Amino acid sequence: MTPNWIAVDWGTTRLRAWAMRDAQPLGARSSDRGMSALTPTEFEPALLDLIADWLPATGRMRVVACGMVGARGGWAEASYRAIPCPPIDPRRATSIPTRDPRLDVRILPGLSQAEPPDVMRGEETQIAGFLAGHPDFEGALCLPGTHSKWVRLSRGRVERFRSFMTGEIFALLAGQSVLRLTIGTARPDPTAVVQAGAQALADPHAAQSGLFALRAAALLRGLAPEQAAGRLSGLLIGAELAAARDFWQDAPTVIVGAPDLARLYETLLLAAGARTCQKDASALVLAGLAAARLDLPEDT
Amino acid sequence: MTPNWIAVDWGTTRLRAWAMRDAQPLGARSSDRGMSALTPTEFEPALLDLIADWLPATGRMRVVACGMVGARGGWAEASYRAIPCPPIDPRRATSIPTRDPRLDVRILPGLSQAEPPDVMRGEETQIAGFLAGHPDFEGALCLPGTHSKWVRLSRGRVERFRSFMTGEIFALLAGQSVLRLTIGTARPDPTAVVQAGAQALADPHAAQSGLFALRAAALLRGLAPEQAAGRLSGLLIGAELAAARDFWQDAPTVIVGAPDLARLYETLLLAAGARTCQKDASALVLAGLAAARLDLPEDT
Repeated sequence: MTPNWIAVDWGTTRLRAWAMRDAQPLGARSSDRGMSALTPTEFEPALLDLIADWLPATGRMRVVACGMVGARGGWAEASYRAIPCPPIDPRRATSIPTRDPRLDVRILPGLSQAEPPDVMRGEETQIAGFLAGHPDFEGALCLPGTHSKWVRLSRGRVERFRSFMTGEIFALLAGQSVLRLTIGTARPDPTAVVQAGAQALADPHAAQSGLFALRAAALLRGLAPEQAAGRLSGLLIGAELAAARDFWQDAPTVIVGAPDLARLYETLLLAAGARTCQKDASALVLAGLAAARLDLPEDT
Repeated sequence: MTPNWIAVDWGTTRLRAWAMRDAQPLGARSSDRGMSALTPTEFEPALLDLIADWLPATGRMRVVACGMVGARGGWAEASYRAIPCPPIDPRRATSIPTRDPRLDVRILPGLSQAEPPDVMRGEETQIAGFLAGHPDFEGALCLPGTHSKWVRLSRGRVERFRSFMTGEIFALLAGQSVLRLTIGTARPDPTAVVQAGAQALADPHAAQSGLFALRAAALLRGLAPEQAAGRLSGLLIGAELAAARDFWQDAPTVIVGAPDLARLYETLLLAAGARTCQKDASALVLAGLAAARLDLPEDT
């Protein structure tokens, strides 16, 4: 089988591409040429380096892309769509001029929220992929990660959302603050994550008061690096869950993320009384891109 | 006049020394050879580079030092003293062997608290300097900075204390997280600090929910860098004040710090109903070192 379109998830640090035959992936490739490593003129060569042999000898190949590739400073800016709205509107995809005549590249825009101000790029496509499989879902999605996103969905639309810098703050504190002397590259102990997360959910000030205490506990009583990493992660995740309570308190909540991280969120939310389950995120971007592709207008 | 002792404040990033005649400074010098830039054998040369011409041709000169110079990995470890206790006990100063026979170096130890675990090194000397001028003070001290310290004092003793990583987290988020694209090296607007600080004092989740919103507000409506820096600083300071409420709520509170930063803390605390005033920190270390020097035991 030969591909009839190409799906692309182009984030800040990674470029991932799939050769597609309708809804079926025929092959997958990735590189580290994410948006932050490229100037605008370098996007087309970076894409061709990855997918050139998937292109036909003649004719055009449609490429549907999402993520930071559409940010200001990316390949071309795909203006945000303002919520409330469905996560994707293929008619609002931005068509990118290319030098190679075989490429027909469309970038899906992200979403914006006026008040409180918030934006997403890429997650809207995961949300669309989730809704493609659960069109009647009413409730909350949680997408944990570098910048966690909480989203309320109703009647197929994103009603509101909120971003948290949880993953990025963990990486900065563990790797670059005074806590690096205690944590370094240690992996968080899952039991410590859950204990500290429950503490931060119960006490909104724990994530402020409990950070330097990790360094002190290492100095005074030899707190192990994995325990310190776990407590740091738990304090930050618990503070996120406490601040996002209005998303999960009264609605079914699906956690969409890497399995290990999603399991920690699920454990803490279940203990807090939420109705929640987790779903592996890896297939959702592709499902969202495939759903968008079906409704793309022809090139003008 | 010739000096009869030398006062040294040796922190993580700075070395400061004063030539002293009893309680009077005759000269002051500093260098960037802080504890984190030195291996143990490099401390004595770094000190001599700064103060050699203050030393007598014959006889010994007493040097009284405080700060991270006494940490594990510093010149020599000066073991913590466990609170509750007076901030300084000169009998517990650590005498350091030196190659230069003219040096008689004593390092003052820091303080530790078992539960919740916490430590300080250097601030105990500022506290002693404050108590030297206010021996009957009953209440709270706040020492804002990279690692802010809150301290409760009673009958000349440190009863309890708590550290917050407020300044370090501000520097990491403003300079290295995604917020660097919005803030960079902009100076915080003081009005924005106070507004965001009051918001974080009233809403314990504001410091989680409000961070990524600064990036979004810059993208969507051109939030200025100084405003974003001010809001970031205010959210973090307000969260610290909320978490330290049990220190300032029911007791007179003195803020000891750099004047610009101390004024922001004072403004927020006064608005929250605290009885508070600020005091310039710069003279307090010296006053604490001078008080300690009077009670040092002779060398054995």
